[in-house]
Amino acid sequence: MHLEFTKGQGAGNDFVILLDPHGDLELSDELIRKLCDRRFGIGADGVLHAVLGDYAEEWDGPEWFMDYRNADGSIAEMCGNGLRVFCKFLFENHRVPGHSVAVGTRAGLRTGQEFEDGSIEVSMGEAKLGQEVQIDAGGQAYQALAVDVGNPHAVSYVSSVLAVDLSSAPTWLPETAFPAGVNTEFVERTAPGKLNFRVFERGSGETLACGTGVVAAAAIEHESLPEDQSVTVETPGGTLQVRFADGQAYLKGPAELVFSGMWHD
Amino acid sequence: MHLEFTKGQGAGNDFVILLDPHGDLELSDELIRKLCDRRFGIGADGVLHAVLGDYAEEWDGPEWFMDYRNADGSIAEMCGNGLRVFCKFLFENHRVPGHSVAVGTRAGLRTGQEFEDGSIEVSMGEAKLGQEVQIDAGGQAYQALAVDVGNPHAVSYVSSVLAVDLSSAPTWLPETAFPAGVNTEFVERTAPGKLNFRVFERGSGETLACGTGVVAAAAIEHESLPEDQSVTVETPGGTLQVRFADGQAYLKGPAELVFSGMWHD
Repeated sequence: MHLEFTKGQGAGNDFVILLDPHGDLELSDELIRKLCDRRFGIGADGVLHAVLGDYAEEWDGPEWFMDYRNADGSIAEMCGNGLRVFCKFLFENHRVPGHSVAVGTRAGLRTGQEFEDGSIEVSMGEAKLGQEVQIDAGGQAYQALAVDVGNPHAVSYVSSVLAVDLSSAPTWLPETAFPAGVNTEFVERTAPGKLNFRVFERGSGETLACGTGVVAAAAIEHESLPEDQSVTVETPGGTLQVRFADGQAYLKGPAELVFSGMWHD
Repeated sequence: MHLEFTKGQGAGNDFVILLDPHGDLELSDELIRKLCDRRFGIGADGVLHAVLGDYAEEWDGPEWFMDYRNADGSIAEMCGNGLRVFCKFLFENHRVPGHSVAVGTRAGLRTGQEFEDGSIEVSMGEAKLGQEVQIDAGGQAYQALAVDVGNPHAVSYVSSVLAVDLSSAPTWLPETAFPAGVNTEFVERTAPGKLNFRVFERGSGETLACGTGVVAAAAIEHESLPEDQSVTVETPGGTLQVRFADGQAYLKGPAELVFSGMWHD
């Protein structure tokens, strides 16, 4: 089996992109796991399978549909940095005209825009602030706020993100707060609207960045800012910016295509 | 900058292969680090730079020269699994006729051979047994034997390789035994000539396999075997076989080219 692909990354989240306009590829969990293996395969956090909406079972409309898969083969509704890389791919390969695009995702229609400096901004839907919870990381208790960005997050403000021990999975109280687990973010305010950021993703461990986690943290920070001020989030993988308009969040930052190639089974 | 490359792996050690017959490429440490980065680059343990001997400063002769670089850009004399992947690349791309080849390396001339099942065997030079030492791993002391395979190793026989704690770097006594550090191998004999194997590589941590480490362990095991019996070593990355003839070791196992592509800076 031979498979043409492109590899891209956004703020250190990396993806194998498979262009498949008519949805001809059969992407088994096993194939996804092979492709995403960092030693025996191409290596990635997930696969962005690009299918035209008219040929995608899960989308009704002419737009490109982003069929996102986690590295283990499981299906995810959305991935913020994945969507930014997906848009970059469409622009660079002239799969859409111009520099703005609407993309179908399992979380609904999203928009993407390319700026002159090459950065990509995508719409991320609504971020809903929830209840106060307690997060325990490395034997230390932290106050946190739950935020729903389509997936569950708990964000703690700390005096130093580097001092947080993320060598094992944080736990939470009350235990009933997150029946499906939670992504935990730790942020340090360096100025109003400026955050240093670390994240522990459920099922993955500490990662360089997490698009929805960045939006969750920015949503809290934005509460104390003028409505039109954006939030800058420094993640270990790069700098991201979040603005809020029309009841939803917009995530902006670097995205690039790193290489393209042919994979052999 | 655009760079054509092939990605290959042998027993889970993975390499970016750059074909550069006339030695035109300037491989700075920075470029190597970029290429080997697993999130922002292609991702690999090291780079195999293939240059014709006539154009390689460090080799005198017509053979292909393997200019091996570690992921951090530093130069290494040899890499057993790297050499196996290097030979696979030459065979599959018809850069040598037939299925056996002589390759120039910084450790001297080496030979490679491809078998019908696709496995590759390479010559590894001499493995010299040295003094008894003590290795401490995870607070536990282990008796070990030093072995020199061009680089330094210390091999311990244990009752269960899975029980060894390799979450941090092992230390050794006497401290003077390995002034440049040492790679530590733990092996479990499952039958005469059959070993389960784990390795902690100096500077890298635990890895899926280490060609010279496998040879070091096999050299000790071979002491108690008939001269012509080979040693089978099960590493976390795959099964390798070591035989001894003409005063040197031969390392055999799987090697494959996984994908080829074009990298963009």
